Amino acid sequence: MAKDIEASAPEGGEFSAKDYTDPPPAPLIDLEELTKWSLYRAVIAEFIATLLFLYITVATVIGYKHQSDATVNTTDAACSGVGILGIAWAFGGMIFILVYCTAGISGGHINPAVTFGLFLARKVSLIRAVLYIIAQCLGAICGVGLVKGFQSAYYVRYGGGANELSDGYSKGTGLGAEIIGTFVLVYTVFSATDPKRNARDSHIPVLAPLPIGFAVFMVHLATIPITGTGINPARSLGAAVIYNKDKAWDDQVRTP
Amino acid sequence: MAKDIEASAPEGGEFSAKDYTDPPPAPLIDLEELTKWSLYRAVIAEFIATLLFLYITVATVIGYKHQSDATVNTTDAACSGVGILGIAWAFGGMIFILVYCTAGISGGHINPAVTFGLFLARKVSLIRAVLYIIAQCLGAICGVGLVKGFQSAYYVRYGGGANELSDGYSKGTGLGAEIIGTFVLVYTVFSATDPKRNARDSHIPVLAPLPIGFAVFMVHLATIPITGTGINPARSLGAAVIYNKDKAWDDQVRTP
Amino acid sequence: MAKDIEASAPEGGEFSAKDYTDPPPAPLIDLEELTKWSLYRAVIAEFIATLLFLYITVATVIGYKHQSDATVNTTDAACSGVGILGIAWAFGGMIFILVYCTAGISGGHINPAVTFGLFLARKVSLIRAVLYIIAQCLGAICGVGLVKGFQSAYYVRYGGGANELSDGYSKGTGLGAEIIGTFVLVYTVFSATDPKRNARDSHIPVLAPLPIGFAVFMVHLATIPITGTGINPARSLGAAVIYNKDKAWDDQVRTP
Amino acid sequence: MAKDIEASAPEGGEFSAKDYTDPPPAPLIDLEELTKWSLYRAVIAEFIATLLFLYITVATVIGYKHQSDATVNTTDAACSGVGILGIAWAFGGMIFILVYCTAGISGGHINPAVTFGLFLARKVSLIRAVLYIIAQCLGAICGVGLVKGFQSAYYVRYGGGANELSDGYSKGTGLGAEIIGTFVLVYTVFSATDPKRNARDSHIPVLAPLPIGFAVFMVHLATIPITGTGINPARSLGAAVIYNKDKAWDDQVRTP
Repeated sequence: MAKDIEASAPEGGEFSAKDYTDPPPAPLIDLEELTKWSLYRAVIAEFIATLLFLYITVATVIGYKHQSDATVNTTDAACSGVGILGIAWAFGGMIFILVYCTAGISGGHINPAVTFGLFLARKVSLIRAVLYIIAQCLGAICGVGLVKGFQSAYYVRYGGGANELSDGYSKGTGLGAEIIGTFVLVYTVFSATDPKRNARDSHIPVLAPLPIGFAVFMVHLATIPITGTGINPARSLGAAVIYNKDKAWDDQVRTP
Repeated sequence: MAKDIEASAPEGGEFSAKDYTDPPPAPLIDLEELTKWSLYRAVIAEFIATLLFLYITVATVIGYKHQSDATVNTTDAACSGVGILGIAWAFGGMIFILVYCTAGISGGHINPAVTFGLFLARKVSLIRAVLYIIAQCLGAICGVGLVKGFQSAYYVRYGGGANELSDGYSKGTGLGAEIIGTFVLVYTVFSATDPKRNARDSHIPVLAPLPIGFAVFMVHLATIPITGTGINPARSLGAAVIYNKDKAWDDQVRTP
Repeated sequence: MAKDIEASAPEGGEFSAKDYTDPPPAPLIDLEELTKWSLYRAVIAEFIATLLFLYITVATVIGYKHQSDATVNTTDAACSGVGILGIAWAFGGMIFILVYCTAGISGGHINPAVTFGLFLARKVSLIRAVLYIIAQCLGAICGVGLVKGFQSAYYVRYGGGANELSDGYSKGTGLGAEIIGTFVLVYTVFSATDPKRNARDSHIPVLAPLPIGFAVFMVHLATIPITGTGINPARSLGAAVIYNKDKAWDDQVRTP
Repeated sequence: MAKDIEASAPEGGEFSAKDYTDPPPAPLIDLEELTKWSLYRAVIAEFIATLLFLYITVATVIGYKHQSDATVNTTDAACSGVGILGIAWAFGGMIFILVYCTAGISGGHINPAVTFGLFLARKVSLIRAVLYIIAQCLGAICGVGLVKGFQSAYYVRYGGGANELSDGYSKGTGLGAEIIGTFVLVYTVFSATDPKRNARDSHIPVLAPLPIGFAVFMVHLATIPITGTGINPARSLGAAVIYNKDKAWDDQVRTP
C-alpha cells in the first residue's frame, strides 16, 4: 500500500464508491436499551471515570497551590510545585488514561460536552445521553468531595479547584476562550472516532485516546491563565457544588 | 517476520525488486482538481487548523508572560507560569493533534514551509500549494486576531507573540538557526510519510503525527532562546501582521 | 469495519456469542511450573526491573533535592532542579519502559500490588506471585542501595527518597490517598490487559505500556504533595530499609 | 487471540517449537557489503542524525544556561529557562525522532555504545560498526561546532555543553552512574528490537522508538545532576573536542 498522506486526499474522496459504511444514527429513544446490562455498566464506568478524573486533577491543583504558597513553605523554594504545566499534564493525562480504559465500555465520554455533541450527531440515544450526564455530574461531585475530605485544611484556603475568572479578563473573554477550547476538544474527538479514518488512512490509525488527551492538555495550557479552563461542565459543576462560593458559582453558570 | 531493525537495512536495499510503488508525481497544474469538492474541503481544513494552532500557541505565550511578569503578579511566585518548556509543548502538541486530525483531509501541512517542500518534491500540485499557503496565512492572521481580541489588555504589552531576535544574537545566527530547525521538521515529515516505510519496516509504522509533533517540540526547545522559533512562516506572518511593530516585521521578512 | 467507539458498546455486550475466550484461571499451586526455566527468567527480570526502577527514581529525587537546596547552590537559581513534575515523569516513564521491556518475559508487574491483584484475579499462580514479590523487594533494596553508594554524601541529608507524610496531613488521609492511587493504577492495568479488548475494540489496541506509565505519572502528580506516593510497596520498602529512620519506617508499615 | 500479558510468558517459552527465526549473526568482515550503496547511505544517515542530535541538545543546554543566568537576565525571572526537565526532554525527544527517521536506513544507532553493543551481539559487521562510529564522532563534532558558531558569545561562558562532574561526586561515582545509565539504554534497545517480540507479544508491538527515547529521557533525569549524562560517547567527544578544556577532556576520557 504505497499511499502517502498527501496522495490519499485527492484520490477517492466523495466520488468513489465508499469503502466504509456509516453506522445508522442512534434512535432518539430506545426503550429496549434500558433492559440491557451493558447500558448500566457504561453509566457506572462514566461515574467512576469522572470521579477519578476530578479527584486526581483537583488534588494536583490543591497540592500545587499548597507547595507554591510562600507563606507556608518558607524553607522550600516557592517553585517546587508542579506548576501550570503539571496541572495541564494532570488534566490531559487523566483523559488519556480514562478514555483508553472506558472506550470499550461506555465510549469514554467523561465530559457532558462530548456526550451532548455525540447526541447531536445521533451517535448516542437520548436516554443514554441523559443517564451519562447524570452519572458524570454525580461522579464529579463525589470526586471533588473526596479531595475536600482528604485535604480539609487546605481545600478552602486554596480556592477549591473551582474555576474563577482571573482579574483583568471580562466575562465575554472567558466565554469566548471556553467556546474555542471546547471546539478544539470536540473537533479532535470527532476526528479520532471518524469511521472513515480506518478505511482511508490505513497508516494513521489506532491511537485515538492519545490525541484526545493531548487536546485537553493543549487547551489547558492556553486557557488556565484566563479562566482555569472549564471545558468539562461536570468538572466545573463538581468543583462549584463542593466549594460553593458565590463567585465560582456565578462564573460557572455563565461559562459552561 | 523475524527481521530486526539492523538486519532490515543491508538486505534488500536498492538492488532487490521493489515491494512498493512510488506514487506518480503530482502534475504542476491540474485544472480538473479545481472542480473537486475535496480540494476546497482540504483548503478549509488548513485554514481552521492554522487558526486553532495560532490561537492556542499565542494565547499560551501571552498567558505565560502575564503570569511571569513580576510587576503584575507580586503575590504569586514569578515562576508559576508554564515556562519555555510549556510553550514548546504547546507548539509541538498542537501540531501533533492537528496533523492527526487533518492528515486524512488535507495532508496535515499547517506550515507553508512543509507545503512548499512537498510541492518541490512534486507531492502536491501548484494550484493546491498556492491555495494551501493562502489559507494558512489567512488562518494565522485570524488566530492571532482572536487572541488580541480576547486579551487586548495584555496582548501589546507582552510583545504579541511575535518573533524577535533576542539581544546578543546577529541576524545571521537567527537565520542559520531557523534553517536548521526547518530542516529538522521537513526531514521528519518526509521520513514519516515515506511510502517505503510501510513496505520495509513493518514494525515501526503508524504513528506518523507523533514524531512530527515531537520534532516541532524539540526545535522550539533549542531555538526559542535565540529567535522565538519561526519555522512556521504562517505563524510568524500572522503574529507580525497583527502586532505590527517595526522590529518584529523586519525580523520576520529576513528570517522566514 | 465501520464501528466507532460509541457504537461498539451497546452492540454485542454480554448477550451475544463471545468472540474471545477467557484464559483458564491459573492454578493455585503448580509444581510443574517450578521446573521451567521461563519462571526463573521471569523472576530475574522482575528483580532487574525493580532495581533499575528504584535506582533511576530515587537518584532523580536525591538529585532534585540537591539542586534545589538553597544552602548549597547559592550561585544557581533554586528552581533549576527538575521539580515535582520531573519526579513524576521519572516514575511514570520508568514504568512505561520497564513494562514495555519485561511484558513478554515476566508480565511486567514490577509492583507487588499489581502482582497481588493479578493473583487475586487468578492470573498468576501462588508460587509465581510469592517469587515475584520476593524478587521485587530484593531488587528495590539493591536499587536504593546503589543510589546510597553513589551519593553517600547527599543520600541521608535529603531524606533518602523514603516516603514520609507531609506536615498537616493525618495518617488516615495518607492511607486514603494511597488507596485511590493504587486503585487508579490497578484499574488501568486490568483494563489494558483485558483479553476482551483485542476482540472488541480493534482500533484502540496495542499501546498497553503507555497508559500504565501515564497512570503512574498522574498518581504521582496528585499525591506527591501528600505522602510522596507509595503505590509501589517494593519502592517504599526499599527506601525504608536503606534509609532506616523511624518516621519513614512507621509510615511505610501503616501505608502500604 | 485471548492471550493476556501474564499468560503469554509461561506458555511456549524455550521448550515449544519456535514460531520465529533468529537472523543469522552478521559476518565479522563482509567485503561485499562495501560495494553496496545502502551501507554508505546508512553511514551518511548516522552522520546527519548525530549532527542534528548534538546541535539541538547542546543549543538547548546553552540557551537554558543563558536564560537562567541571573547576572545577565536581571529583568526576567531566573526560572524562565527550560530547566533540567527541558534538557532531559531535548535528549530523549531527539533520540525518539532520529531513531524513528533513520531506523529503516541505518538501524537508528546514533550512539557508539549502541553500535558497539549490537556489534558484540553480532547484529552488525565489524566494517559497518567502525564506519558508523567514525560517522557518529564526526557528526557530533560538526553539530557542536555549529552551536559554537551560532552562539560564540555564550558558548564558552556557559561551559560548552561538555560533561563535567559536579562538585561533591567522585570519579568512581560518575563512572558507576554512567555504566548503569548505559545499561538501561542498551537493555531497552535490545528489548525493543528483539525478533521474538513480534511473534510472541502480538499486542505490545510497534512503537520501538518511543521507549528508546523515553529511556534516554529517564537516564538524563537521574544522572544530569551527577555527570551531565554522557551515555552517548559521541556526544561527550564532540562537546569535549570543541570546548577543549582540560577538565572536560579528562572526565570524558575516564567516563566513556
